[in-house]
Amino acid sequence: MTASYFAEFPTIAYEGPESNNDLAYRWYDKDKVILGKRMEEHLRFAVCFWHSFCWPGSDVFGAGTFRRPWHAGANDTAAARAKREAALSFVEKLDVPFYCFHDVDVMADADTIGGFRKSFAEAVDHLEELQDRHGRKLLWGTANLFSHPRYMAGAATNPDPEVYAWAASQVRDALDATHRLGGANYVLWGGREGYDTILNTEIGIEQENFGRFLNLVVDHKHRVGFTGTILIEPKPHEPTKHQYDFDTQTVYGFLKRFGLENEVRVNIEANHATLSGHTFEHEIAMARALGIFGSIDANRGDHQNGWDTDQFPNSVEELTLAMLEIIRAGGFSDGGFNFDAKVRRQSVDAIDLFHGHIGGIDTVAHALVKAAAIIEDGRVDAFRAERYAAWQGELGQHIRSSEGTLGSIADLAVGRDLAPQPRSGRQEWLENMVNRF
Amino acid sequence: MTASYFAEFPTIAYEGPESNNDLAYRWYDKDKVILGKRMEEHLRFAVCFWHSFCWPGSDVFGAGTFRRPWHAGANDTAAARAKREAALSFVEKLDVPFYCFHDVDVMADADTIGGFRKSFAEAVDHLEELQDRHGRKLLWGTANLFSHPRYMAGAATNPDPEVYAWAASQVRDALDATHRLGGANYVLWGGREGYDTILNTEIGIEQENFGRFLNLVVDHKHRVGFTGTILIEPKPHEPTKHQYDFDTQTVYGFLKRFGLENEVRVNIEANHATLSGHTFEHEIAMARALGIFGSIDANRGDHQNGWDTDQFPNSVEELTLAMLEIIRAGGFSDGGFNFDAKVRRQSVDAIDLFHGHIGGIDTVAHALVKAAAIIEDGRVDAFRAERYAAWQGELGQHIRSSEGTLGSIADLAVGRDLAPQPRSGRQEWLENMVNRF
Amino acid sequence: MTASYFAEFPTIAYEGPESNNDLAYRWYDKDKVILGKRMEEHLRFAVCFWHSFCWPGSDVFGAGTFRRPWHAGANDTAAARAKREAALSFVEKLDVPFYCFHDVDVMADADTIGGFRKSFAEAVDHLEELQDRHGRKLLWGTANLFSHPRYMAGAATNPDPEVYAWAASQVRDALDATHRLGGANYVLWGGREGYDTILNTEIGIEQENFGRFLNLVVDHKHRVGFTGTILIEPKPHEPTKHQYDFDTQTVYGFLKRFGLENEVRVNIEANHATLSGHTFEHEIAMARALGIFGSIDANRGDHQNGWDTDQFPNSVEELTLAMLEIIRAGGFSDGGFNFDAKVRRQSVDAIDLFHGHIGGIDTVAHALVKAAAIIEDGRVDAFRAERYAAWQGELGQHIRSSEGTLGSIADLAVGRDLAPQPRSGRQEWLENMVNRF
Amino acid sequence: MTASYFAEFPTIAYEGPESNNDLAYRWYDKDKVILGKRMEEHLRFAVCFWHSFCWPGSDVFGAGTFRRPWHAGANDTAAARAKREAALSFVEKLDVPFYCFHDVDVMADADTIGGFRKSFAEAVDHLEELQDRHGRKLLWGTANLFSHPRYMAGAATNPDPEVYAWAASQVRDALDATHRLGGANYVLWGGREGYDTILNTEIGIEQENFGRFLNLVVDHKHRVGFTGTILIEPKPHEPTKHQYDFDTQTVYGFLKRFGLENEVRVNIEANHATLSGHTFEHEIAMARALGIFGSIDANRGDHQNGWDTDQFPNSVEELTLAMLEIIRAGGFSDGGFNFDAKVRRQSVDAIDLFHGHIGGIDTVAHALVKAAAIIEDGRVDAFRAERYAAWQGELGQHIRSSEGTLGSIADLAVGRDLAPQPRSGRQEWLENMVNRF
Repeated sequence: MTASYFAEFPTIAYEGPESNNDLAYRWYDKDKVILGKRMEEHLRFAVCFWHSFCWPGSDVFGAGTFRRPWHAGANDTAAARAKREAALSFVEKLDVPFYCFHDVDVMADADTIGGFRKSFAEAVDHLEELQDRHGRKLLWGTANLFSHPRYMAGAATNPDPEVYAWAASQVRDALDATHRLGGANYVLWGGREGYDTILNTEIGIEQENFGRFLNLVVDHKHRVGFTGTILIEPKPHEPTKHQYDFDTQTVYGFLKRFGLENEVRVNIEANHATLSGHTFEHEIAMARALGIFGSIDANRGDHQNGWDTDQFPNSVEELTLAMLEIIRAGGFSDGGFNFDAKVRRQSVDAIDLFHGHIGGIDTVAHALVKAAAIIEDGRVDAFRAERYAAWQGELGQHIRSSEGTLGSIADLAVGRDLAPQPRSGRQEWLENMVNRF
Repeated sequence: MTASYFAEFPTIAYEGPESNNDLAYRWYDKDKVILGKRMEEHLRFAVCFWHSFCWPGSDVFGAGTFRRPWHAGANDTAAARAKREAALSFVEKLDVPFYCFHDVDVMADADTIGGFRKSFAEAVDHLEELQDRHGRKLLWGTANLFSHPRYMAGAATNPDPEVYAWAASQVRDALDATHRLGGANYVLWGGREGYDTILNTEIGIEQENFGRFLNLVVDHKHRVGFTGTILIEPKPHEPTKHQYDFDTQTVYGFLKRFGLENEVRVNIEANHATLSGHTFEHEIAMARALGIFGSIDANRGDHQNGWDTDQFPNSVEELTLAMLEIIRAGGFSDGGFNFDAKVRRQSVDAIDLFHGHIGGIDTVAHALVKAAAIIEDGRVDAFRAERYAAWQGELGQHIRSSEGTLGSIADLAVGRDLAPQPRSGRQEWLENMVNRF
Repeated sequence: MTASYFAEFPTIAYEGPESNNDLAYRWYDKDKVILGKRMEEHLRFAVCFWHSFCWPGSDVFGAGTFRRPWHAGANDTAAARAKREAALSFVEKLDVPFYCFHDVDVMADADTIGGFRKSFAEAVDHLEELQDRHGRKLLWGTANLFSHPRYMAGAATNPDPEVYAWAASQVRDALDATHRLGGANYVLWGGREGYDTILNTEIGIEQENFGRFLNLVVDHKHRVGFTGTILIEPKPHEPTKHQYDFDTQTVYGFLKRFGLENEVRVNIEANHATLSGHTFEHEIAMARALGIFGSIDANRGDHQNGWDTDQFPNSVEELTLAMLEIIRAGGFSDGGFNFDAKVRRQSVDAIDLFHGHIGGIDTVAHALVKAAAIIEDGRVDAFRAERYAAWQGELGQHIRSSEGTLGSIADLAVGRDLAPQPRSGRQEWLENMVNRF
Repeated sequence: MTASYFAEFPTIAYEGPESNNDLAYRWYDKDKVILGKRMEEHLRFAVCFWHSFCWPGSDVFGAGTFRRPWHAGANDTAAARAKREAALSFVEKLDVPFYCFHDVDVMADADTIGGFRKSFAEAVDHLEELQDRHGRKLLWGTANLFSHPRYMAGAATNPDPEVYAWAASQVRDALDATHRLGGANYVLWGGREGYDTILNTEIGIEQENFGRFLNLVVDHKHRVGFTGTILIEPKPHEPTKHQYDFDTQTVYGFLKRFGLENEVRVNIEANHATLSGHTFEHEIAMARALGIFGSIDANRGDHQNGWDTDQFPNSVEELTLAMLEIIRAGGFSDGGFNFDAKVRRQSVDAIDLFHGHIGGIDTVAHALVKAAAIIEDGRVDAFRAERYAAWQGELGQHIRSSEGTLGSIADLAVGRDLAPQPRSGRQEWLENMVNRF
């Protein structure tokens, strides 16, 4: 086993759109200034541990195909150490600033709660060294509350309080570790916070416990002085039949219900958006409108397949629409673009990890360039603003003012014999405009 | 044109499961007492105007097929009158207590806002007579804010305040009429309250205007002394690409945001539930958990087709699961089962309207019988209660008490070396139990 | 490790609909005669190895939960032996006649092709003993050509002929073993016979190789004197993005293309049907119309989730529609109802395997009773026959005769000034009729 | 009413990617030579009558919004004439070579079969003049066998032979007209050739009648000397629950069954492809592999909505993948790119028709430029060819030769102790390569 899994690969550098080097960036030019900010600061790219270093290339119908050296035997101390070293060296080779992890991704397996904590603590010590050695930072940490059999019926929504307490221990440690490692955010994805069958489920109890849990986490954050953002990651289903954090609007309602709408934001994943019946840009725009936009898990799904395929983004067109909404939301504060994406099961070589990430990074960077051009051009935004301009007029103001009542507004309509004139929404023109850049 | 379209048909009566009469109820025995209440009071069936009396049997690819007498020419005063008479006589023939309507369903066409109000007022006068003559009541009224071209970009979310004002006029009149006709609820379905393309849409402005509108309606309700329930009907999309009232959890968040969670409830439609990625019973259970369960639009979709097919319910199995949740929610207060369902385009005869409604009514009634038996048997509920019993224990109570912190709970997990034991969720057993009845 | 995993459970017997015994059949009365045949002969139930004895309760997001004794360590000779003993004793406890397997399900793991063949041969020897000891038969055997990493790019459609040859070896042995064990059918499910990305795929080459493979298998069947039926199991996708055997109509075209439509039939799985955009009954009816109906993999999907959930069937309503088509197809010759279904990941106990199978068996048996009643009643079939009766008339006969040309038929339409009269399709009445039984 | 609806608009011309003129082409440069052929010849663009000139902007939930002059009253002789003039002048303004129509699109309404034929004949006379006047050609004609109530239960699959005969008359006339107008193809889309409920449907009879119909049409084509291509347009469902021509593989099986695989090809629509669970490029590649690629209906669906949205194509990325397959199929012979696309219901102005078509045309043209560059670069195709190279080797040749048997191939695998080596499918690299151009 070796820490030098990627030794043969160069550090990836910008070479421009005309480059024919497969191991170079064609669009990601980290120091290039776009809309007043360096690309690196705009995009805040992160590499994730789970898909690229933990997953062995298995699927429901077949065994792992990847043969990474640290997968050769048990996930013991040495294997976990090798995996961490490989991961951080990979992030450095890509020359992106951040990485992300779940507790179990970075540590050796352990059975008891004491053993678990010890193993994780060792991993965190090592990560601290590696961050320093490789000059990389933590975008966010999280605890895996869904893979171990104890979580088969959920963590914070488990019918068994002992499981809830185990989850509390994992989250405390993962949040403390994230704080110590200088992480910018802490994420909660409720992978099994939902149900498999409504027949054995008390939604009421489960959601109250879940809301309580989130309040406990926020309280703990303040107690320990963590100043990063707490993020919830919506997903509609899978592995559960129904996951409570279905989408951004649902999460907003949940936060409002438990008084957390100013404490917690959303980490939006493209593939989760499409699984929930929305576009990626919809979820971002909605989060912006509701004031809870946080961070991004960049990937893509397959429009013909109904599960989470977590492919690397490769559509500049789709990402441009997403990027427009991110820019309109003011860009990231703590958040960033984490590649929650995995190479395909047939992409068995180390170089495929590079192709996946380079393609994803260039797709996002190219989209930023296009979105910035659309914003700077101004015609799309001007059309949109003009479309709502009448709300500044007298009738619009009356409607929105405290004097307006249903009756007073209706009386105006009747009194003026209103016959509103149709006005084209110009969808095709807008689509052409976006395609122009 | 004639008001006696259904003259040849008998009044539909209960004859029991063994009856071979196609024009009789086999399960709906209105005076039979189930769980302490007469079936009629439990189920509060309603017939809708739009699908059964207004829709001509057209679809996107073809013209109307139905040849009802009032469809022969223009929708003028005489045609509208004949349609109303046919409708109320049909409700009486079915011997169900309620009907529902949109303003435009019951009135002659009119161009100007003044003409519109006059035409609607005449219709309401006539409906009042007809209710009395046929001994029927209004479950709910609503205003159609989506069919006229003026609403192509929404009503309360329209970029044009004049359209908003038109909508205010329609809703004022429809709500006042509902009040006058003794309606039990008033419904808002935001058919075009959403967007076709995010490129021309300011979600923020639209949602604020929409929240404002809902507040205006609630205020008006109190001003005029209407004591029925205001209901929102969730739907994820269609006709728009995205509809803001996506599902029950989304509506809850919207209501919380605008301070209306105690004023407004949901009218849940089965086919809208499945289009949004949920089961029908999920939406009811979620509404119960959130305290906003109101009423039901009974129909079914087609699991292989991705649009609103609005078929009559015919699955006793699916309805049993829904009925279990309705019973657990305490049953209806103001709400009921409205058949928002249409016979198929090839079902061109008057008798098909009977078959559709009789089948739907019997399906729901049969489901009530089954659900009541499951409740009375008690095993399913007992298993579910037992599954969460540990939350009454010391650990559960600590977690839920104000003393618990993430740290204190985690310390308990560590200190006790917790290793939670797996416990079967018994999904197959529960499904077998439900199938037993 | 023990072969007596199910020792504490009784043999499951019929006790009738009123029984409150969870471990008894309420509808499956094997010797009851329905439409002239014993239920056991009608339904030919089989238990599968893979879901119930091999799968450990893992999913994409989490580890196995089931803790069967033979899962405690490696899948070595002893574990495989214990698993086989447990499986056959389970089939006997259920008192159903058949079981099904993939080669790898029943054998110890082995690395080389020689070791693989030896391990499988030992398993087959043992199965032969166990069949005899437990009085059970093999409905069908198959080879697993999708789980091992060598098959990541397909088996018969793999770009590498060496993989194709490996697959040929597995299929030869599995077909020979099926023959020796008296199996009634041999199944091919092309789990990875499709593609992940069209960018690296030559559909033309892959389909030709696939057609060639199927011809080789059919040829081998005849050489060795196997008289059972060769079956293809359609599925649209998963694990691949696109699977070539998408659905029954697709398979028919494939068979026609390679001259195999009289040699090969389809094994229809309910959940695969719904994933491909069809109902289960559609696939059966289509197979009947095309003359390729073979066998059934009984399970159900989740209408809101887009992957293969392989749940036990529990809808008598849905199965009744499927059973109607099976009866119309003349019932099974070699085929049967194999439960390609798995208990949920939270159903961790041995008893859950009983609940799953008992529920599934009773659901199917109940559906048979209902479908037979509908057939015997005759009204549904009579309506359908009458609907097409005019094809026996003069115009219908002219159209179908060899003298008819487009011109002659059109001339008749014009000459007679045809104005066809609308006739209701009576969908609601038909649905009510089906629900009546 | 006026024929000069588009008088104020210029003829659209190529101005290059940098043009800021909304009414110019940025990519479609008709005389530019790509891969040895002029763009105009490559792409063979057509405008359709139905969406752009007949549809009034209605949907299931609302009335028409478009107010074209010819929609002001009944569809009488004058209106139909104005519509035809507007349409052909629009095609000329776009400067694309072709248009397409259904019989009912171009004619005045008529009740009887005699009146229908007369009205259509007048329209065809006028179209012949207009083709000449505007210098445009017919890509294909077709008969509308789905909008009139008589077709509610299908045309060639109708239970009533009189309807079948009516359809024969329409198709005869439409095919003859297509022949007379010099049309390059004749299309059949089986809009209601399927079923709404399987309960009233004999799939066997319906498919035989449908196969018979197609044979009659092919026979008629030869009788009248029409040398264009007969095309079937697959669609999985909508308006029917199930349409028999589900997708390309299904159509292939249907053609094989009725001996028509060398007579009939497919007209592939992008939105129909995605509704059937496939990508657009899949359908084209499959048609190529099966030898039945014919023509294209260019549009796009909405990945989150489950019905046929028929939007104008605007994804160069998606079209590039489709164009690669078209080029590999040898390009069009008789076929072309027909815009079976409609502007959105809110796009009420004449200029929106221009924006829609210009955007669609430029999207397709840009995709052609990209696809040609990928082909000329050669790396993608070289990788793909190399992936299958081993089939030229000895083992591959043995497998494909007539001497190979399952046994002989298996013996080779065993004798050589084959252990096939994994080889990356390089999906991410291929996706990056495609994105490079």
